[in-house]
Amino acid sequence: MPEGKDAPEVAPCCPPLTSPDLSAEDARTMAEMFKALGDPVRVLLFSRVASHSGGEVCVCDLGDLGVSQPTVSHHLKKLRDAGLVTSERRGTWVYYRVAPGVLARMGTMVSAR
Amino acid sequence: MPEGKDAPEVAPCCPPLTSPDLSAEDARTMAEMFKALGDPVRVLLFSRVASHSGGEVCVCDLGDLGVSQPTVSHHLKKLRDAGLVTSERRGTWVYYRVAPGVLARMGTMVSAR
Repeated sequence: MPEGKDAPEVAPCCPPLTSPDLSAEDARTMAEMFKALGDPVRVLLFSRVASHSGGEVCVCDLGDLGVSQPTVSHHLKKLRDAGLVTSERRGTWVYYRVAPGVLARMGTMVSAR
Repeated sequence: MPEGKDAPEVAPCCPPLTSPDLSAEDARTMAEMFKALGDPVRVLLFSRVASHSGGEVCVCDLGDLGVSQPTVSHHLKKLRDAGLVTSERRGTWVYYRVAPGVLARMGTMVSAR
C-alpha cells in the first residue's frame, strides 16, 4: 500500500450485548456507538450514508432532511467522531461512507449469544 | 389469559438502518432505543438482564456494577421507559426482563438490507 491512509482501526469490539461477560471497556465502546445514534437526525444521516448506492454519499446530497446545513455538518461530525462514518474531501465537497466493519460489529452486538 | 397484564405493545418498528426509506418516525423510534443504550452503565445493566438465566434478574442481583443502588434504579428506569426492559414487583424485590421482541427488533435494525 503506497500511502499510509488513515484507515480507522477496527477494534475487535464487541461481544454480543446479551453476553454475560461484557467488560466495562466493552460497555464504554458500545455506549459510545449507541449514543452517536441516539438522535433522529443522526439515525437518518447514517441511514442515508449506509444505503447510498456506491456506499458513499456527498454532503451536497444530504440537504433534504429538514435541518440546516450547519446542523447536518454537526451531526456528521458526531457520527465521524464515534467511528461510524469516515469522510474524505474531494474538490469542493466532502464525501461520507460507513466506516469499515461498523455494520458487522453492530450485528454482532445485537446478535443472540 | 386471566389478567390484562400490561404487556408492552411491540410496534413493528423498524426497517434496517441501512434501508433507504427510513421514515422520520422510524428514526425517532430507533434514536430513542439507541439513546437508552448510550451509557456504559445501561449497556452493562441491559446485558446483565439479557444474559441472566431464566431471562429474568432481581434488582437485588445488580449491585456489583460499581455504582450505587439509586444509580442502578435510575438507569433501569431509563431502560424501562425506552421499552427495552419490563419490570415486575414480587414481594420485596423488583425483577427485570428484556421486553418481548426487543432483541429481534434490534437485529432487524442493524441487519443488511
